[in-house]
Amino acid sequence: MIIVKIGGNILDNPERLQAFLVDFAQLPSPKLLVHGGGKIASAIGQRMGITPHMVEGRRITDAETLDLVTMVYGGLVNKQVVAKLQALGCNAIGMTGADANIIPAQKRPVKAIDYGFAGDVTGPESINVQALEVFLQAGLIPIFAPLTHDTKGSLLNTNADTIASVLATALAPKHKVQLVYCFEKKGVLQNAQDDDSVISAIDSEKFEKLKGKGVINAGMVPKMDNAFAALQQGVAQVLICQAEALTSINTNHYSGTTLSLT
Amino acid sequence: MIIVKIGGNILDNPERLQAFLVDFAQLPSPKLLVHGGGKIASAIGQRMGITPHMVEGRRITDAETLDLVTMVYGGLVNKQVVAKLQALGCNAIGMTGADANIIPAQKRPVKAIDYGFAGDVTGPESINVQALEVFLQAGLIPIFAPLTHDTKGSLLNTNADTIASVLATALAPKHKVQLVYCFEKKGVLQNAQDDDSVISAIDSEKFEKLKGKGVINAGMVPKMDNAFAALQQGVAQVLICQAEALTSINTNHYSGTTLSLT
Repeated sequence: MIIVKIGGNILDNPERLQAFLVDFAQLPSPKLLVHGGGKIASAIGQRMGITPHMVEGRRITDAETLDLVTMVYGGLVNKQVVAKLQALGCNAIGMTGADANIIPAQKRPVKAIDYGFAGDVTGPESINVQALEVFLQAGLIPIFAPLTHDTKGSLLNTNADTIASVLATALAPKHKVQLVYCFEKKGVLQNAQDDDSVISAIDSEKFEKLKGKGVINAGMVPKMDNAFAALQQGVAQVLICQAEALTSINTNHYSGTTLSLT
Repeated sequence: MIIVKIGGNILDNPERLQAFLVDFAQLPSPKLLVHGGGKIASAIGQRMGITPHMVEGRRITDAETLDLVTMVYGGLVNKQVVAKLQALGCNAIGMTGADANIIPAQKRPVKAIDYGFAGDVTGPESINVQALEVFLQAGLIPIFAPLTHDTKGSLLNTNADTIASVLATALAPKHKVQLVYCFEKKGVLQNAQDDDSVISAIDSEKFEKLKGKGVINAGMVPKMDNAFAALQQGVAQVLICQAEALTSINTNHYSGTTLSLT
């Protein structure tokens, strides 16, 4: 089972998106895709007079912004990806965490920052795996928008990396799961200035050392914390690579980063 | 099997929508919902500087408008309805006709008018009933946005009444289908000026007479043509009533219009 997450740098670029979808369609099943869409949401928001408020790379989701991301993630991006995959013979079905109640979540408690309608998934045990298996067994390819719900009637904006890792963890007891984060760089870099300095393998011990030295910093820390949490909970492998490397992940031409436990 | 279609007059009004969803959640399963959303799309479009172009009550869907309706129908309206139904214990799953390839369609040929990215469904035989049955058998309640796809990668804007009738017809061989059009009036009126002049039953013969006299005119003609086509193709019953009458449809308190063959 392959779970792929793509972000804004692919979604924003029609040619890269199409090339990615061709590659994704060719991967063996079962598989699923989780997408972001933040840059597109910001652009559409601007046309509507909605200014994005970001704190530490996370969007503050007031009621108006929740409507915006619901439209853009759950509608525009999700359905365009589904239609394009269908044209490639990939039987995609778009969804959010509210659909079939697959990802119940909690509105993030207000502490120093009020993130608004941001959703925290309590853990893989809250995922409705049974519903997901219905789709997988029917040969369908789930395409997840980064939205969950509070089970009380409200949608919640939820980080796509987190959704990918929690779905991977929830499916790990039944499937050998590869979790692939498609990334703007070729992999985790030893030297941020050198795009070719990809670290090919990182185990949990090396991860702590690289964090300590500041080689891994800022936005990469929560992404990799998520990844190692997934490995500890049974996910077979986590890969961090460019979208263009997707078809090579199970070959010896793979040029991205592979994460594993120590 | 009950198939319900709701339009803008309910979706626009949070109180009426919530009351409708409470009633819908109480209907026996299997059931499915088809929604519109044109008024909300026009309002959001206005904020984005997109002017609606309507011809004979149908929206001309240029590329920008297709993105708009994809966001609003497939995202905002669909996912809000799903989240609200989930809170009511109704295991809803939102979708468009592109998802699981349930409703393939054709871009409307350009004749006197170029409707742009408008989709025509070729007929009930094109519906992917098998995928729909997977959801129904899993106890899921499909919620359809009025979008289809051309199977070549493009979504298409499709009339919600048409989607409801074509789904009803496609499901008719396996289910005894009631098709319920929720309407702004209490039913089909004998006198447009008198909201209480509901015609309780119309058969195909009476329909032709009422059309001839002009009692049924304008927007009601294609709606009822669709309805009679569905009856001719095996749908058990078509009801036209207010959303508020939904829970009474199978009681002797029902006060809307019932359509049947002669």
